[in-house]
Amino acid sequence: MKKFFLPIVVILLIFSGCQTSSQKPKYVFLFIGDGMGMSHVQLAKLYSDSVLKKDNSISFLNFPVASNSTTYAANRFITGSAAAGTALSTGYKTSINTLGLSSDHSDTLYSIAKRFNENGRKVALITSVSIDHATPAAFYAHVPYRGMYYKIATQLFKSDYDFFASGGFRDPYNYMQDSSSISIFELGDKNGYNFTTTLEGVDSLVSSGAKHIIYSVSNPAPGSTLKYDIDRVSTDVTLADLTRKAIEVVDNPNGFFMMVEGGKIDWAAHDNDAATVIYEVLAFSDAVSEAVDFYKKHPDETIIIVTADHETGGLSIGNRENHYDNHVALLQYQKVSKEKLHEIINDYLNKNNKPRFDELLNIISNKTGLNKEIALSSAEIAILKESFNKMVQAKNFSQKTLYSETDLLTSNVLKLLNSKAGIGWTSGSHTAEPVPVFVIGEGHESFMNQLDNTDIPKRIAEISGI
Amino acid sequence: MKKFFLPIVVILLIFSGCQTSSQKPKYVFLFIGDGMGMSHVQLAKLYSDSVLKKDNSISFLNFPVASNSTTYAANRFITGSAAAGTALSTGYKTSINTLGLSSDHSDTLYSIAKRFNENGRKVALITSVSIDHATPAAFYAHVPYRGMYYKIATQLFKSDYDFFASGGFRDPYNYMQDSSSISIFELGDKNGYNFTTTLEGVDSLVSSGAKHIIYSVSNPAPGSTLKYDIDRVSTDVTLADLTRKAIEVVDNPNGFFMMVEGGKIDWAAHDNDAATVIYEVLAFSDAVSEAVDFYKKHPDETIIIVTADHETGGLSIGNRENHYDNHVALLQYQKVSKEKLHEIINDYLNKNNKPRFDELLNIISNKTGLNKEIALSSAEIAILKESFNKMVQAKNFSQKTLYSETDLLTSNVLKLLNSKAGIGWTSGSHTAEPVPVFVIGEGHESFMNQLDNTDIPKRIAEISGI
Repeated sequence: MKKFFLPIVVILLIFSGCQTSSQKPKYVFLFIGDGMGMSHVQLAKLYSDSVLKKDNSISFLNFPVASNSTTYAANRFITGSAAAGTALSTGYKTSINTLGLSSDHSDTLYSIAKRFNENGRKVALITSVSIDHATPAAFYAHVPYRGMYYKIATQLFKSDYDFFASGGFRDPYNYMQDSSSISIFELGDKNGYNFTTTLEGVDSLVSSGAKHIIYSVSNPAPGSTLKYDIDRVSTDVTLADLTRKAIEVVDNPNGFFMMVEGGKIDWAAHDNDAATVIYEVLAFSDAVSEAVDFYKKHPDETIIIVTADHETGGLSIGNRENHYDNHVALLQYQKVSKEKLHEIINDYLNKNNKPRFDELLNIISNKTGLNKEIALSSAEIAILKESFNKMVQAKNFSQKTLYSETDLLTSNVLKLLNSKAGIGWTSGSHTAEPVPVFVIGEGHESFMNQLDNTDIPKRIAEISGI
Repeated sequence: MKKFFLPIVVILLIFSGCQTSSQKPKYVFLFIGDGMGMSHVQLAKLYSDSVLKKDNSISFLNFPVASNSTTYAANRFITGSAAAGTALSTGYKTSINTLGLSSDHSDTLYSIAKRFNENGRKVALITSVSIDHATPAAFYAHVPYRGMYYKIATQLFKSDYDFFASGGFRDPYNYMQDSSSISIFELGDKNGYNFTTTLEGVDSLVSSGAKHIIYSVSNPAPGSTLKYDIDRVSTDVTLADLTRKAIEVVDNPNGFFMMVEGGKIDWAAHDNDAATVIYEVLAFSDAVSEAVDFYKKHPDETIIIVTADHETGGLSIGNRENHYDNHVALLQYQKVSKEKLHEIINDYLNKNNKPRFDELLNIISNKTGLNKEIALSSAEIAILKESFNKMVQAKNFSQKTLYSETDLLTSNVLKLLNSKAGIGWTSGSHTAEPVPVFVIGEGHESFMNQLDNTDIPKRIAEISGI
């Protein structure tokens, strides 16, 4: 019999599409670049290669699997972060804006994070935005509407997860509904969850044997997020810092599940702000590198999946104005995010009773290179001047956007800069484009075909044996 | 010893990243969707699922590998079909517009098709455009400039390949350079190449034992291509017809290499004509289905690779006007390609001394659904009327485009329709977006990571052992 066993095994391995693994990964990383389409990754790589002159700066582009995933929601072809987050966390489609519930909100859907937790693995959720935002919330909350930030936060304390690291909470005092509510911080304390705003604080809590550690960049300031990487100063923490700390906190012989979201790739893409997108993708990639370092120490027990919830902006390298050329290097002159540029312009206009266009254009030039390193035609300057005049006449220095504020002049400055750099955007919203999926580690072959987002948690569960 | 052999083989198989194959494929299909980005495929699938109500209409979306490939040329980040075709055929980067030569034109680069030919395998080249166009030409020609159509065609007769099927030749009489030249047809005859314009003619030539068969949709009409699938009538041949015939012609026990190009996906995308793109992708997919049928008969000896040379148009499902909504179903009312609509409008204007906008709008409504199934606002009608007036006043009914002609009114009709359907385009040219790679068959695991276009022929050669 022995004689025939060998060829049969070999044939089985070949016919199984090589999905047979020697063992089950016990360390699972799921990285979600919110809004990160293939072009966002490609743009960051091009900029890093050609402007920053860094090799292999996108840690996941060399992974052995680079496939893609469809993203549609149960009731809309172009998804949103709540429905996509729920698909990625539970393996079920749901309706737009729903978290951890079925489309009609009648059934509760449970995330794989919960299953890892129930299997005695540690769980960490990390994000560059607030911990109650749609993507991380999809891994612990069950609410009919993603905007119920306070309720979402209260559900975090039922998760029993080990470590949370983020910008903070969006509505910790329930200002949106009932400001007499018990604060998230008090409620957390009562439930045995420990808050800190410093990485040293995390270490102390770990040393003291605390379970349930919640790190926030700054509390109790509501709505906190990590700074855009392009606006960051050296003392600001990065997503990589949080990921490194999370690995320290949850590393244990039983294994762990860690979700890390690069949440502001999406925000910058909603703003059609290519330079800021680049730095956010690079910061996300640096966070993935922390997991890759861990993988190198445990290659047979680790899997890292890098994907996105949806594409934002309909981004292309290539636009109508530049035909076959691109001038991505021009983005190096942009020194601040679109959001920050708005703050600077807003600040100037608020502080000057008699604002002068030439003065403001000079400020803009210093922050973007426009009319300095990047020549502007008189027609282009006229567009900016007209924006300035309109704003001053209307005394309208600020307009709300999805996640922040902007103004007419800032918008036109960014449009000009992106146009000149050869960057195309079809939308200020999401698109239906399939998102990239990069995988390294034990069981990576399970991800090499075109997936749907619901396949991802299913395959993670399958290969992990949970 | 036997006892230890089994686990070692298993471990080897696992550590090799499952790249160990039981055998080498002897039937190799390389499908190239010219200009076909991931969104083009996704759009065709969405339309087919939701409007045509056909399941699994995109034959290659279920392949076990769905990865992607970078496309950049040696001297430009956004590539063109000549440089990309050369990369896909030879494994070397070259400069824009160069075919089968190094960037500086000093070295000759040879295609894998040639290597298959020299190894005693049959070779077929199939395209929906002309056989001297950049993509097919990259598999046999060596010229510094892709526009040298006559010279390219003369080099076809040095290829020794077995079967060519296409729309025809672009410049068979060398009208562009020297119209006293010997025609491509005479030259082919002298070199033992046999021409036919019917599929029955192909059969006769095969029966008579002819080598080197050149099928063209119609000769000697220069510049012939297959009709856009959206404009096709039932008697017109399709890319699937050509692929099926090619399989019949080159199927032999020694194996074959077949390249099939869907060349007009690119043309429709240059025109930002989404409905026409959809039908071109579906026609391309039908051609792939012919190869899949063959694969099912020879699963252990066949590999099918489906990819693209570059993305065209910066296409997204999702645009600024429709935010998170899409109305792809509106494209069902478009009955003709943008090119054909231009011909109809041009024809009307040339034949009517006193053209009437209402009359022409009625024609447009019947061909596109605009102002009929798809409501137009008075402002939108005014845009079309202004275009009409400008054209009539200037007596300018036609403008050249890259591959055909258009006019102001046709352009604005298509812009309106695409905008209402929720389709976004960033460009009328190519973009740098990585293109999809779908693979099924023996050795498919070699393609599961992110590739560069030069990797594709290298890996084909590697797994085929040529």
